[in-house]
Amino acid sequence: MSDLNSDIAIARAAKKKPIKDIAARLGLAEDDIIPYGHDKAKISAPFLSALAGRPDGKLILVTAVNPTPAGEGKTTTTVGLGDGLNAIGKNALICIREASLGPCFGVKGGAAGGGYAQIVPMEDMNLHFTGDFHAITTAHNLLAAMIDNHLYWGNELQIDSRRITWRRVLDMNDRALRHVTTALGGVANGFPCETGFDITVASEVMAVLCLAENLADLEKRLGDIIVAYRRDKTPITARDLKADGAMTVLLKDAIKPNLVQTLENNPAFVHGGPFANIAHGCNSVVATRAALKLADYVVTEAGFGADLGAEKFFNIKCRKAGLKPAAAVVVATVRAMKMNGGVAKSDLGAENVEAVQAGCANLGRHVENVKSFGVPVIVAINHFVNDTEAEIQAVKDYAAGLGTEAILCRHWAEGSSGITDLAEKVVALADGGTADFKPIYPDQMRLFEKIETVVRKIYRGAAVTADQAVLDQLAAWEDAGYGDLPVCMAKTQYSFSTDPTLRGAPDGHIVHVREVRLSAGAGFVVAICGQIMTMPGLPSQPAAEAIYLNGQGEIEGLF
Amino acid sequence: MSDLNSDIAIARAAKKKPIKDIAARLGLAEDDIIPYGHDKAKISAPFLSALAGRPDGKLILVTAVNPTPAGEGKTTTTVGLGDGLNAIGKNALICIREASLGPCFGVKGGAAGGGYAQIVPMEDMNLHFTGDFHAITTAHNLLAAMIDNHLYWGNELQIDSRRITWRRVLDMNDRALRHVTTALGGVANGFPCETGFDITVASEVMAVLCLAENLADLEKRLGDIIVAYRRDKTPITARDLKADGAMTVLLKDAIKPNLVQTLENNPAFVHGGPFANIAHGCNSVVATRAALKLADYVVTEAGFGADLGAEKFFNIKCRKAGLKPAAAVVVATVRAMKMNGGVAKSDLGAENVEAVQAGCANLGRHVENVKSFGVPVIVAINHFVNDTEAEIQAVKDYAAGLGTEAILCRHWAEGSSGITDLAEKVVALADGGTADFKPIYPDQMRLFEKIETVVRKIYRGAAVTADQAVLDQLAAWEDAGYGDLPVCMAKTQYSFSTDPTLRGAPDGHIVHVREVRLSAGAGFVVAICGQIMTMPGLPSQPAAEAIYLNGQGEIEGLF
Repeated sequence: MSDLNSDIAIARAAKKKPIKDIAARLGLAEDDIIPYGHDKAKISAPFLSALAGRPDGKLILVTAVNPTPAGEGKTTTTVGLGDGLNAIGKNALICIREASLGPCFGVKGGAAGGGYAQIVPMEDMNLHFTGDFHAITTAHNLLAAMIDNHLYWGNELQIDSRRITWRRVLDMNDRALRHVTTALGGVANGFPCETGFDITVASEVMAVLCLAENLADLEKRLGDIIVAYRRDKTPITARDLKADGAMTVLLKDAIKPNLVQTLENNPAFVHGGPFANIAHGCNSVVATRAALKLADYVVTEAGFGADLGAEKFFNIKCRKAGLKPAAAVVVATVRAMKMNGGVAKSDLGAENVEAVQAGCANLGRHVENVKSFGVPVIVAINHFVNDTEAEIQAVKDYAAGLGTEAILCRHWAEGSSGITDLAEKVVALADGGTADFKPIYPDQMRLFEKIETVVRKIYRGAAVTADQAVLDQLAAWEDAGYGDLPVCMAKTQYSFSTDPTLRGAPDGHIVHVREVRLSAGAGFVVAICGQIMTMPGLPSQPAAEAIYLNGQGEIEGLF
Repeated sequence: MSDLNSDIAIARAAKKKPIKDIAARLGLAEDDIIPYGHDKAKISAPFLSALAGRPDGKLILVTAVNPTPAGEGKTTTTVGLGDGLNAIGKNALICIREASLGPCFGVKGGAAGGGYAQIVPMEDMNLHFTGDFHAITTAHNLLAAMIDNHLYWGNELQIDSRRITWRRVLDMNDRALRHVTTALGGVANGFPCETGFDITVASEVMAVLCLAENLADLEKRLGDIIVAYRRDKTPITARDLKADGAMTVLLKDAIKPNLVQTLENNPAFVHGGPFANIAHGCNSVVATRAALKLADYVVTEAGFGADLGAEKFFNIKCRKAGLKPAAAVVVATVRAMKMNGGVAKSDLGAENVEAVQAGCANLGRHVENVKSFGVPVIVAINHFVNDTEAEIQAVKDYAAGLGTEAILCRHWAEGSSGITDLAEKVVALADGGTADFKPIYPDQMRLFEKIETVVRKIYRGAAVTADQAVLDQLAAWEDAGYGDLPVCMAKTQYSFSTDPTLRGAPDGHIVHVREVRLSAGAGFVVAICGQIMTMPGLPSQPAAEAIYLNGQGEIEGLF
């Protein structure tokens, strides 16, 4: 593609409307929004409260095959479908997660869609945006400071300093912070601890913000966060430390959904946490619910492949928020199918129908999995310029064999006019009334069995292993009354297994649970599987090295 | 005072005008501002550039005696004087520094003025505001991550990992982070280092932002930052690590001044770093310069006592930015004079003229010091309800004895109508043309001699001590071409000496320089004197414990 058609060039050429005009289309007056510049706004709390009585629109999930270096375009398709629904005369709203700053400076690539299916202002979205993640970082680290401060001033709550589970966070890829010792240097600096930093998106505060129903629920959940244990293993919460009020104050604006627009001037809510590999990774409940009150069709996405994103969207977010998805779209590309079929990235240019057919096993597995939640599925083939007719047909044939339709979409090149076919089919599917959503495990199932259920039914693994300490920990949490929580799996996004190089549709693999973490405020138990890290590192040539402001004050290198 | 007249009650009852109306008064159209909500805005870069040819207004510095637990009201007086100047028909603009989040959760107390002389929205100012400090934190820590990442991937620049001087920062009072070891846990996490975190306001990035002339200068200064040395002691800069471009991108909005308003709807620029005890602590050069183009009188403040704030305002900011202050106000209170005269806080209620007279030595010292920079001085007595006539007269008489006038001001209780007398006198002083500003040491003086000059002339100490390592370090920087930089003193704000309990006007004390840090990007050498910490801790009962949202969604406990 030429420079004139690059994502950044298209985004810069966007004819943005004032955000108050976008808001007006949704029925919001100027006082109902809190502007951040002329092209971003938050929705005011009184307006959100007043929505309660309205009927709900239909919820459509966009998910994808496992990501490959070839690119799949899940966000691009989410944005494209939203534009497409509006183009065919439907009242549709897009709901996606925010971008994390950390990865922007690591591996090049933004999180606002691509081509003619983008959300703008994309530079802001990939930088500080409206400050939500900074607020989460601050609230999280305030709690950490209050724990150490409590120890310093006499430890009235009798915190066992060896059993502090609350780490710190930064929205940065910084491997050196994964494992640190703090409070060195003498009496004035406190009691030395072994601890570490996670990236902000992995913070329980992020999950709490994304799952909270409103400010009161936010404060309650923040108070429920367990930060440490006493010698007798009884828990200490953020409420015990009196941190919940101040944390809520820090998050009072962050909980309000952010309104922006697509290149075609359609509204989009961009709110909440990404990283479905280490977090639950969905748009916030507050934003999704508000969108359902404001539109007839709400298109939302769940990160990475459906094994992580959709599974957690269904088993955690929909279960807890009482959401009932009406339809799902699984995004695939010919190129990704080829890579799943064993082709190297350098050979993607050559037609290879057999590889496409072989790689479709990955797509098929995801389609089956999504259907197992009772949600009807359609496949979107996100078109790339070098895809051949035969390759495209191979994907369509494979989908048909699964009893599912695969629709070729050209939104990247053409915007909404390239995706009206999918939009029509999605409307038919969502309006068809065939959805009968239910999570794949019940609340009352034991925690380890929930992990096993996800591994067996979704990952198609043969078994789950874990050290006795992990099993004992899960049992202890069950005894303490946390047995009815869902599990939030942390696993590589590149494979159904825990081996990132194992593409396609592997089965019979063993999934090792390395560590479990209780998120009593968010309301789930995190199971960290395989080598996945909750603090990424930067690559040998970080994208940051090539990011700068050009002579026109425009940002170069962010995409 | 009753709850109805508390700072927070007054601030909540404020009749704020839309920020676009405040901007319009300064000649800014809606497109010239970037709104953050309806009551905050940043000034656009094109508007700032277009100001270049205009004449400058007069710059008035508000500084104070050494702070005591009695309260002095420097910010309150700065705001009051700005309102007072507008009330007498002058076109005046207020320029103050932003508030740091960290202390808000430590010792109760905001940073937006008090009584009827406040800047609003004060809650936002004391929380995330427009995100400037979060941007600084991120830019600073990106550089830190890129240093460790460079080591990890082969260390092409040959950084000596024992000589990394760049620490990390958080806008949080967290003593446990003062001294940490990072990159523990094995090969995948990098090379272990001893390091630590400072509070964000102490970041060199904060100083760079506050001293930069524009975006291009910002990028150049960021590139000049020295982060480490090789084994042969040659320096490694942020530019060597290719971090300067991305850091500039992160700061592109933070460098734009923030516009808010006083309770009387007069405009105020709130921009840049506080903490004149560990940083240079002034409003940004960009904001101050823009204000001088937009108003006939610009009232700005310099933090804590004049020994720290005014000294650095003159020797660093005015020297480097070519600013020529026309007049200075030293704020004093009867209560602070009493405490400087030896009275305990619990005894402040009783009249004690002798103590006031004794304590005035502190005021006198500051007045002399400010005059030594060639700037004419007037004293503002910030009135408290229990001050007696005799006590007030004692301060007035003392000031008269110095050849200076002391004016009683009732802005806290009465707003602008209580401070018109001071406003008239300040105009006369500034218009009188008696100012002849010059720094108290020349660029070419040796670094240690500059420290000695400040200690001798401003602190009235007898001598400066330092370990040979510190002296060698200063000499090495001189050899490397940094000898012409000014010094940025880090010292307790409570005394002219390094002993925070030594009130009044001590002399003959010894000042020990514990550590020196080169800020090659900001353009100064930091001299850390005595026990002052660059990362504060929280008190035994942090203010955070009492901060919460009440049933009306209002913040309680922040003031």
